[in-house]
Amino acid sequence: MNQSIAHLGPPGTYAEQAAVFYLNWLAKNKGIEANLCPYPSIAQSLQAVAQSNAQLAVVPVENSIEGSVTMTLDSLWQLETLRIQMALVMPIAHALISCAPSLDNIKTVSSHPQALAQCQRWLEKYLPSVQLIPTNSTTEPLQRLEHDKTAAVISSSRAAQLYNLPILARGINDYPENCTRFLVVSQTEVDTAYRIASASASHTSLAFSMPANTPGSLVKPLQIFAELDINLSKIQSRPTKRSLGEYLFFIDLEADSTEPKMQSALAELSTHAEVLKIFGSYNVLPANAL
Amino acid sequence: MNQSIAHLGPPGTYAEQAAVFYLNWLAKNKGIEANLCPYPSIAQSLQAVAQSNAQLAVVPVENSIEGSVTMTLDSLWQLETLRIQMALVMPIAHALISCAPSLDNIKTVSSHPQALAQCQRWLEKYLPSVQLIPTNSTTEPLQRLEHDKTAAVISSSRAAQLYNLPILARGINDYPENCTRFLVVSQTEVDTAYRIASASASHTSLAFSMPANTPGSLVKPLQIFAELDINLSKIQSRPTKRSLGEYLFFIDLEADSTEPKMQSALAELSTHAEVLKIFGSYNVLPANAL
Repeated sequence: MNQSIAHLGPPGTYAEQAAVFYLNWLAKNKGIEANLCPYPSIAQSLQAVAQSNAQLAVVPVENSIEGSVTMTLDSLWQLETLRIQMALVMPIAHALISCAPSLDNIKTVSSHPQALAQCQRWLEKYLPSVQLIPTNSTTEPLQRLEHDKTAAVISSSRAAQLYNLPILARGINDYPENCTRFLVVSQTEVDTAYRIASASASHTSLAFSMPANTPGSLVKPLQIFAELDINLSKIQSRPTKRSLGEYLFFIDLEADSTEPKMQSALAELSTHAEVLKIFGSYNVLPANAL
Repeated sequence: MNQSIAHLGPPGTYAEQAAVFYLNWLAKNKGIEANLCPYPSIAQSLQAVAQSNAQLAVVPVENSIEGSVTMTLDSLWQLETLRIQMALVMPIAHALISCAPSLDNIKTVSSHPQALAQCQRWLEKYLPSVQLIPTNSTTEPLQRLEHDKTAAVISSSRAAQLYNLPILARGINDYPENCTRFLVVSQTEVDTAYRIASASASHTSLAFSMPANTPGSLVKPLQIFAELDINLSKIQSRPTKRSLGEYLFFIDLEADSTEPKMQSALAELSTHAEVLKIFGSYNVLPANAL
């Protein structure tokens, strides 16, 4: 039976593009055939895996300009059974797609809020008086473009091709080094079918809550890793949703959780944390080099 | 001349409600008359202050459920001249506003993405098949409700009153303890006209970047404050926007920057940080008790 890969839809999103890279890699390297399953939100893509409606999900977790995708972090914490098998880094180049004859005719620009934010300076410079319309994905508003010659959408060149729509401007993101890290997530702990063959994983992701908010309560967990010379590549706080000022901490570490020094660090961390959840150890690869 | 207070509009947003509390407090306690100036985005509200088109802005910085308002943090870092005069905490109670006769008739629910996210379980339970439409603010889609009896908007009861629209359901936020912290921001360092009379401020907000990403590089800055018994009430990482994996750290501390122990902590921090920006010391007050 074919495997299903859940991702944010409709077709043509950056998440779908990352999923296509992964799907081709699965076929070529593991002999696994997979189908893409678009979902209306990132949370629903991850729920599909937690509820066994899909075997895998490919979801964005961080963009180099706009930061963490909080819906992905919150879902990892809440759904519990999800495990990260791989991370894919993909460059993001936004295009302005429109049936308008020129920029002068454009009155509205629609896209996902992250994409609108990643092009805000370009928009201020070239389209200062248009109305910005946030949407659930970069591709959702593409279907309406043919009926409205004053509308434009920020999406990828690949999406323009897919929907057979003209591109008015390319590379409109404010920072050329724009890239997004995606996670390949499944329900199983470590599944060699879904991963590259490698002696060890380069990264481990986890999250924890602390029992009390006292001076230095966050220093202790960070010290555990610093003293063992384990680099922290990311820390992100998220509200516990209990009360304002209470946080969870999401941490990425540059080590495999099966290494002895990580085992002892995690054992010590669990004595300080109120709740500790480990989302898995995995390798990070450039999506287009898969 | 009247002072201008910039906030996210159109009228009726939670930011406007916080600005109204502050405006009344200014009139009563400081004899300062002020006008409200709605702007289409949070970034533009803060730019208005930086460009001296408004004396003050009231902007959301953190919600207890959905976390940091990253546009506010990024603007504080980028605009440089802005200083925090006060923080206001306001409870948030969302209502479902619609001209539909009952929930069965509703096909779309529009609101700011933060408000949609804060009601996602209620929506899954009572309106599982509606289309969710993100908007720039909770009040922007209200004007269109009278023309579309299948549409609903998540906003405040106060907004429903203001636009004379019926409420279909109240208190629809998933967590009853939902509240948002707003910042009152001006261009001046410490302006007693805009603050409560108090011997010292309870909080200081700052942000810094680090010169190198090595094991323990974040531990040192946190240790400085822990060793001086200064509590960290919040830490939030944001991308530097240079490359994936490089961060700024936004920190809230429970101390006044003029206290001797804070002076020495800040002096030590500045020797470790690449860039350090201090956004001000201020008091945090419940908005409805002003």
